[in-house]
Amino acid sequence: MARVINFNPGPSALPLSVLQQMQEELLDYQGTGMSILEHSHRGQPYGEVHTEVKELLRELLTIPASHEILFMTGGATSQFAFVPLNFLHADRSADYIVTGTWSVKAMAEAKIVAEAQCAWEEKQDGKYLRVPVQSELKLDPNAAYCHMTSNNTVAGTQFHYVPDSGSVPLVADMSSDILSRPIDVSKFGLIYAGAQKNLGPSGVTVVIIRKSWIDEAKTEGVPKIFRYKTILEGDSLQNTAPTFPIYAVRNNLRWVKEQGGVSAMEAQNKHKAEALYGCISEIPNFYTCPVEASSRSLMNAVFRLPTEALEKQFVAEASAQGMHGVKGHRSVGGIRISMYNAIGVDKVHTLVKFMREFAKANSRPAANS
Amino acid sequence: MARVINFNPGPSALPLSVLQQMQEELLDYQGTGMSILEHSHRGQPYGEVHTEVKELLRELLTIPASHEILFMTGGATSQFAFVPLNFLHADRSADYIVTGTWSVKAMAEAKIVAEAQCAWEEKQDGKYLRVPVQSELKLDPNAAYCHMTSNNTVAGTQFHYVPDSGSVPLVADMSSDILSRPIDVSKFGLIYAGAQKNLGPSGVTVVIIRKSWIDEAKTEGVPKIFRYKTILEGDSLQNTAPTFPIYAVRNNLRWVKEQGGVSAMEAQNKHKAEALYGCISEIPNFYTCPVEASSRSLMNAVFRLPTEALEKQFVAEASAQGMHGVKGHRSVGGIRISMYNAIGVDKVHTLVKFMREFAKANSRPAANS
Repeated sequence: MARVINFNPGPSALPLSVLQQMQEELLDYQGTGMSILEHSHRGQPYGEVHTEVKELLRELLTIPASHEILFMTGGATSQFAFVPLNFLHADRSADYIVTGTWSVKAMAEAKIVAEAQCAWEEKQDGKYLRVPVQSELKLDPNAAYCHMTSNNTVAGTQFHYVPDSGSVPLVADMSSDILSRPIDVSKFGLIYAGAQKNLGPSGVTVVIIRKSWIDEAKTEGVPKIFRYKTILEGDSLQNTAPTFPIYAVRNNLRWVKEQGGVSAMEAQNKHKAEALYGCISEIPNFYTCPVEASSRSLMNAVFRLPTEALEKQFVAEASAQGMHGVKGHRSVGGIRISMYNAIGVDKVHTLVKFMREFAKANSRPAANS
Repeated sequence: MARVINFNPGPSALPLSVLQQMQEELLDYQGTGMSILEHSHRGQPYGEVHTEVKELLRELLTIPASHEILFMTGGATSQFAFVPLNFLHADRSADYIVTGTWSVKAMAEAKIVAEAQCAWEEKQDGKYLRVPVQSELKLDPNAAYCHMTSNNTVAGTQFHYVPDSGSVPLVADMSSDILSRPIDVSKFGLIYAGAQKNLGPSGVTVVIIRKSWIDEAKTEGVPKIFRYKTILEGDSLQNTAPTFPIYAVRNNLRWVKEQGGVSAMEAQNKHKAEALYGCISEIPNFYTCPVEASSRSLMNAVFRLPTEALEKQFVAEASAQGMHGVKGHRSVGGIRISMYNAIGVDKVHTLVKFMREFAKANSRPAANS
């Protein structure tokens, strides 16, 4: 079958050339006579991959020397626990900016370890429709850290600025928008991201951490294997790394670099978002985006149709035309289009063309006027 | 390049047919128009894989209904922490049977959480050369659990019986010998195994756990994502699963089944071990296995040559003849041959032939008599 257009929220589309390279060398990695799946995590061929991923991340995200790159597992969800386990001392409190499902879960894990307070949260009819502006944040100047979710896959919102947490280390879950735009890493104490959106397939979590902060981490009662310090000292090889997912990330990062790096990705992502949100704005009687304009995500666009029946039909017809993964998250309903780096501009144009045709064919002026 | 013979201790060899299938369908999984790497962990195609792995494990290992199968990440090393975090209550102690490097690390993690006592440990000249017999174990009848390492990759030792821990739940790290022989799962409270030996590639950890024991687990102070109960309730999908490693395990388990299941694997593994240990015994002036005969591992055979220079030469000549991964662990030196399920009998015969020739060419009767 021809490859479909994959708008899945994650795991999500990978560039075809990245998949093709993996396919080509699956039985014999670089003339070594074995698959990368079979190579030792301590051997030279995999070791070079491991090093290259770090170098590419450092280059693509302009990661300063003050920050280290770690590979962990268990996804962002495990980081919800690792962060307070390492940095939330029993007599301290952490700030959480709550902008959706994932922030709620992150804060709940922190509360199991010690105190956490909500620095901002707003729901309208039970839904998260925007991110806060700086002046709305109620920040504790003595907080152990301040946690944010930079992009919210379920709500379709995204921070378009970096909150200022003063001298309090800023921790960001960037699972769904890392590599989509340049970031000033120096502003963050810790950034974490599950790989399965812009980095590669699922199975590895990238952590970018300020080295000096690691020295302030708790150790008492914290299992050694859960300490960032252990991972750093072991160069993320203290236990057998998920070698294939890391190898896949390497290949994908090479692709990002070939495309012109993160700035080129950002330009393309802006173009895709303008095309999609533009289409929604142009047909307001049929498509509505509940998210406040200034908070709209460039990665995950959510919108509604006049009725749930039409939304169901939209999903079915999109699928029949080779466009998959467009159904909204079960908690918010509607449609969600995830357009990570691997989704080319042409794919979004194909979708927009379909959206115009679908609206035309299914608009009932009497009912919608 | 032709595929080499891969005696790596893990990640290790995978059957060629398993790799070929992955290669064939890497761009288009089962006519879905996308790679398994791109499929949602909540979609049907991956969902079927997820279910099939559990069914195959249940069938191949005759896992009774009392036990559940979980997929986790972070390897056995993370289980060293998860087990005490869940089951070692603050006022309790756990027993650890210490048979090598990995047991030592497992016990150290337990001691961070609460009390742990050593039920047996024996080193000769700093090396672990055997596993205990039942009568040697100093077991605490009130222990929270009793932990063992069924096979020791570094020392080359293996339990050839299941220790009787009475009513105390038995926990086994079976990372390096799961699926190599039939086991009576009902005797264990919990079995865990990193995938990267007999199960598949690295990136997923299989946990087999007695369901009723989960209800006794601690919750206070234990992050939700680190509770076995959370993983069970989420069907190992509470966060994005490492989909490709699990898919690779599925393909490998199908292969094990095609080969005749775990009994057939055991017969083959015995045959391989007899050939290799037989060769060592037949040339005692050149090859010596330090491990006590009754404790020798069928998975990892360790042995020495007369001098370190000859060992170095052995590694180089084996490599020149297409046999890789034969160097012993840095902590014990010498040679280590890892012969997991994917290593066919013919591969070990090729090695044995090489060993005979190497001994003949390099024996100096005067020096070794």
